[in-house]
Amino acid sequence: MMKAVTFQDIGSVAVLETPEPTLELPSDVIVRVTRCAICGSDLHLYHGEIPMMPGDTCGHEFTGIIEDTGSSVGKFKRGDRVVGTFHTACGSCNACQRGEYHLCASAAVYGFGPIYGALNGSQAEYARVPFADINLRHIPDKLEDEAALFAGDILTTAYGAARNANISAGSSVAIIGCGPVGIMAIQSALALGATRVIAIDLLEERLQLASSLGAEIINASNSDPVGRIMALSDGEGVDAVIEAVGGSRTILLAFEMVRPGGHISAVGITATQTFDYPLMQSTTKDITFRVGLANIHRDIDKTLALIANGKIDPTVVISHRLALEEAAEGYHLFDTRVASKVILIP
Amino acid sequence: MMKAVTFQDIGSVAVLETPEPTLELPSDVIVRVTRCAICGSDLHLYHGEIPMMPGDTCGHEFTGIIEDTGSSVGKFKRGDRVVGTFHTACGSCNACQRGEYHLCASAAVYGFGPIYGALNGSQAEYARVPFADINLRHIPDKLEDEAALFAGDILTTAYGAARNANISAGSSVAIIGCGPVGIMAIQSALALGATRVIAIDLLEERLQLASSLGAEIINASNSDPVGRIMALSDGEGVDAVIEAVGGSRTILLAFEMVRPGGHISAVGITATQTFDYPLMQSTTKDITFRVGLANIHRDIDKTLALIANGKIDPTVVISHRLALEEAAEGYHLFDTRVASKVILIP
Amino acid sequence: MMKAVTFQDIGSVAVLETPEPTLELPSDVIVRVTRCAICGSDLHLYHGEIPMMPGDTCGHEFTGIIEDTGSSVGKFKRGDRVVGTFHTACGSCNACQRGEYHLCASAAVYGFGPIYGALNGSQAEYARVPFADINLRHIPDKLEDEAALFAGDILTTAYGAARNANISAGSSVAIIGCGPVGIMAIQSALALGATRVIAIDLLEERLQLASSLGAEIINASNSDPVGRIMALSDGEGVDAVIEAVGGSRTILLAFEMVRPGGHISAVGITATQTFDYPLMQSTTKDITFRVGLANIHRDIDKTLALIANGKIDPTVVISHRLALEEAAEGYHLFDTRVASKVILIP
Amino acid sequence: MMKAVTFQDIGSVAVLETPEPTLELPSDVIVRVTRCAICGSDLHLYHGEIPMMPGDTCGHEFTGIIEDTGSSVGKFKRGDRVVGTFHTACGSCNACQRGEYHLCASAAVYGFGPIYGALNGSQAEYARVPFADINLRHIPDKLEDEAALFAGDILTTAYGAARNANISAGSSVAIIGCGPVGIMAIQSALALGATRVIAIDLLEERLQLASSLGAEIINASNSDPVGRIMALSDGEGVDAVIEAVGGSRTILLAFEMVRPGGHISAVGITATQTFDYPLMQSTTKDITFRVGLANIHRDIDKTLALIANGKIDPTVVISHRLALEEAAEGYHLFDTRVASKVILIP
Repeated sequence: MMKAVTFQDIGSVAVLETPEPTLELPSDVIVRVTRCAICGSDLHLYHGEIPMMPGDTCGHEFTGIIEDTGSSVGKFKRGDRVVGTFHTACGSCNACQRGEYHLCASAAVYGFGPIYGALNGSQAEYARVPFADINLRHIPDKLEDEAALFAGDILTTAYGAARNANISAGSSVAIIGCGPVGIMAIQSALALGATRVIAIDLLEERLQLASSLGAEIINASNSDPVGRIMALSDGEGVDAVIEAVGGSRTILLAFEMVRPGGHISAVGITATQTFDYPLMQSTTKDITFRVGLANIHRDIDKTLALIANGKIDPTVVISHRLALEEAAEGYHLFDTRVASKVILIP
Repeated sequence: MMKAVTFQDIGSVAVLETPEPTLELPSDVIVRVTRCAICGSDLHLYHGEIPMMPGDTCGHEFTGIIEDTGSSVGKFKRGDRVVGTFHTACGSCNACQRGEYHLCASAAVYGFGPIYGALNGSQAEYARVPFADINLRHIPDKLEDEAALFAGDILTTAYGAARNANISAGSSVAIIGCGPVGIMAIQSALALGATRVIAIDLLEERLQLASSLGAEIINASNSDPVGRIMALSDGEGVDAVIEAVGGSRTILLAFEMVRPGGHISAVGITATQTFDYPLMQSTTKDITFRVGLANIHRDIDKTLALIANGKIDPTVVISHRLALEEAAEGYHLFDTRVASKVILIP
Repeated sequence: MMKAVTFQDIGSVAVLETPEPTLELPSDVIVRVTRCAICGSDLHLYHGEIPMMPGDTCGHEFTGIIEDTGSSVGKFKRGDRVVGTFHTACGSCNACQRGEYHLCASAAVYGFGPIYGALNGSQAEYARVPFADINLRHIPDKLEDEAALFAGDILTTAYGAARNANISAGSSVAIIGCGPVGIMAIQSALALGATRVIAIDLLEERLQLASSLGAEIINASNSDPVGRIMALSDGEGVDAVIEAVGGSRTILLAFEMVRPGGHISAVGITATQTFDYPLMQSTTKDITFRVGLANIHRDIDKTLALIANGKIDPTVVISHRLALEEAAEGYHLFDTRVASKVILIP
Repeated sequence: MMKAVTFQDIGSVAVLETPEPTLELPSDVIVRVTRCAICGSDLHLYHGEIPMMPGDTCGHEFTGIIEDTGSSVGKFKRGDRVVGTFHTACGSCNACQRGEYHLCASAAVYGFGPIYGALNGSQAEYARVPFADINLRHIPDKLEDEAALFAGDILTTAYGAARNANISAGSSVAIIGCGPVGIMAIQSALALGATRVIAIDLLEERLQLASSLGAEIINASNSDPVGRIMALSDGEGVDAVIEAVGGSRTILLAFEMVRPGGHISAVGITATQTFDYPLMQSTTKDITFRVGLANIHRDIDKTLALIANGKIDPTVVISHRLALEEAAEGYHLFDTRVASKVILIP
């Protein structure tokens, strides 16, 4: 038996003793979890917006040590230090063979309920990883587990959003929203060579963090972000905008801020189903709009290298480190926005 | 003095005697027009949706013979046979230097009123072409003027839309709408190597033309286009969708038809300002959406080569050939949808 | 027991009874071979240039019917009609995960001796296919096995060479050498949208085939190919050159023919180890040079679609169809250049 | 009259009084030079390897202040602070319209003799700039002339070489040679997001500079660079190699160091005309090889932004700052390798 964070009811999780996972297929490995985390998307489950069975294990962000390997696993052996991708991919379906691992026909998200593949979560002492050769990466020697953990989910999501925005050396970029994903997007944009990153938020504390990472900042609570962006760019607008809030109103701001020929990439998990796409404006300005799941498997080696190299430090968003047993408290702190990012230590 | 098609009032044009254009700047040339055409976008002026001064010359699609050249013109000489791009670009602003000629800071559209640069139209015996080295192309020897004319506007617009849809060899493509732009998009998709092009329309006549060009066809008046596309693609959807109708309802169909990871390119000049962008669906499927003006200057050499080579025949959309003097009749036929494309011969 | 073409000694192959292959790993399948072929590269083994053990089965081009499947195979079932890639890839090493299947760390070529992975050949009644989900493709319904076979090797090699030459819609291309690979390169270039393909060879018969496929032709035995290319391109040269002969002299011609800023892709299996790279000329003209193995797994779905769609017909290079039992005669005909391509029918 | 550095004879330059340049065409401007520099390629003229007429003005790297503008100049006015590209482009030939400014049909290099366009040099108090809207850029406010100067030539050349090597975020890169261009290549690779840059040279002093900029270093005078690269990369090799020495032996090292599927970009102005291209090795490893002039006009805005933003500091290579009158001494110091980079101040 092992300890695991389990869903109980809407707004309630509990750490219980559950059976340890075992190898089910030759391509599986069992990982002893060293660090796991609570993700913004876990709140969808916590709030009952995505169905989960009582007793199911939660969580999809994790690092660990290989405990046991199936007979066909080729890249990992007992004792290896690894980070997992937040969802699994099979490596052999049409999408995977095109390199579109995020669109794998049999993808499953750890701890995300029956709709997303009914795969046990990783907020636990042990986790089973299917298709391990595809879904784990070795952690570079000089990297702490705590930093590597982010490469399996929100950092690489933000990095993918920056790639979707076509950011390259010399780009000017506006980033709307400085929550954890926005902060990762700022660092990703700079790592991709952006020479001007302008961060927009309503909270001074978040903006100060953005500023410390190299962004220019606009506090939208006391100034007009579109007007300021135009003033800063000779009236032309920026090459790229990353929307990391998820509101339909902030998406429309992006269309105002971007220069003709520019790119908008939306990454926030949104509360709204649709927004009024400004067709005429987009036609005249020739805007490319992109919103979509990130391709973690494609980019995770790059983000691990960027962290190892010091170009990105995802740990700046961590506000709390708790023992796994304190997970219920962690969920509460995160849900009430007291915590910006909670790491759980088994 | 020369004959020119002039705007008179909403719903009224007239062929009048107007002054012949003269060289104004060293980079100008004067072209004797051999063929011009009435474009779908000319109807916006005809309907008064875009302001135009009574007496102004109309038209922006044309071919001709060089009559006179300014002192700094390097690429053209009297007697050369040329096709014009529908708008001018300066070649030296920031956008032009990035190769984004369609976003030129001083772009002007021939015969499109004061908002679009107050440049005289080309439905006339002669036209002045600014920055001629940038805004004209030689017509390949084996190409008729009538075919080359399309490369300066709607063919290259459709080709650009196909490029925006990321079409390449082996792509499967759905094209919604088989009007002149849709027909050009079908030919462009095939020229780019698409191995499956599925054309959708309500009118059997248009679909027969699409079919004769190599497309599979779906008549949406008697079958469900989304269901049919799914049946044809093993339930996956197509790599790319080109929306060539311009309605918000047809754009939403595109999101249903496209495969996960696919591209949607909208090219229809729309009647609506906005549509309800399906954010969640687009996120889950990871769709790239693009709508925008085409970069004619970037692609016109390619479309001229594709016509010369026989891979594209834009003349299939021509329904009427009239003398320039019959322009009023031409506008009427086109406006009432009796004509699909009207060529005017000065 | 089954019949198989086996290597005996330099210049000698024999069809013998050998053990039928069996499933060795859960990801294997057994294929009953319906068509196989003798490839130009098989002659390296035949000539003893690549070591092979007497009695080993030859051949790496094949189509077949699934006979048996391992327990972890997900995409294929008994009775499916398939084409194999000429080498296997594992799907999970670093190179495969980057989509570089041709650089797989554990790649093996069927029937190519111990240096290339000691994998039994496919010129036999049955073949074992490792990592079948990665290394087989379904043959589209309307495609004959004989045509699909080429997608697993030389067609996709030629197509990859055309991609390496950066060919796209509107490109002008010279192709040096009209042997089987050159002929496939001509068709691939046209399928990618090239509007001008100029084929060069010394043999009129080969040139006539090239011409029938849509190429302009130059017989280098009685005219200067560089001079002719320049005359045909206003003295500028072509956008891309594919070298499909494999001689160092013909590679140097490519540098003469290509336009400034153009691309050279060499695909011929060469007899020489090196050539004198024209550094100064390449610097001034800014040439990109590419030679390398093709990424069959990346492109095979596209080439299958292009054959199914009729844009490419690889069967035009077939000169002989023999029973598997006649393989020795087939090797002799091919080695003495009497045959251009030999299909073996088990 | 003004002071200008003039070619006298092989190994001899002199500062003489020469006529001030005047506007010749409407697209010209006259620049009052504020900083100019001696470039490695100037030594080709100094050594008589490229013909120059006695009395001709030398030099092609410069910044300045606009003194006078022709009537058609749109982007600059008297008093503007500018940097020039080392060669001019016309902006309207086929190559320029494709964005390939470095291949402009009427390109001319300042002060590079009759073969390169017979354009007066910029090591002078004033210089005439043809097609000024195309061939000058404004210097960002916070940038010193001395830093901006490099963007017009060697920095952007090195940056272009890094782009040609396909470097992007997460790349591992080896750079052979730490002269001025190599140092700029190191900074460019890092700016493009490379997470591992390994610099190779024989001189400890150069390597210390490379190290201070963030590179790992290998002194090839006392260790085997290929062996070390392999040890540092788990035996795989690096994603990209930039050869910045110009020797045929060092180019061959690049083929040893690069990983399968990797890119080699050669940027050194070489003493040799050819090298023995390793065809078989390149085929098996699937290497892309690129050598060519840089497209300064395409990239200069990016390099200016990277300097302004602090990601690149080209001034680290400056060893001497002399008055324009001391140019003869400057050439001597540079030719004898006492100086690594000489700035001349008019």
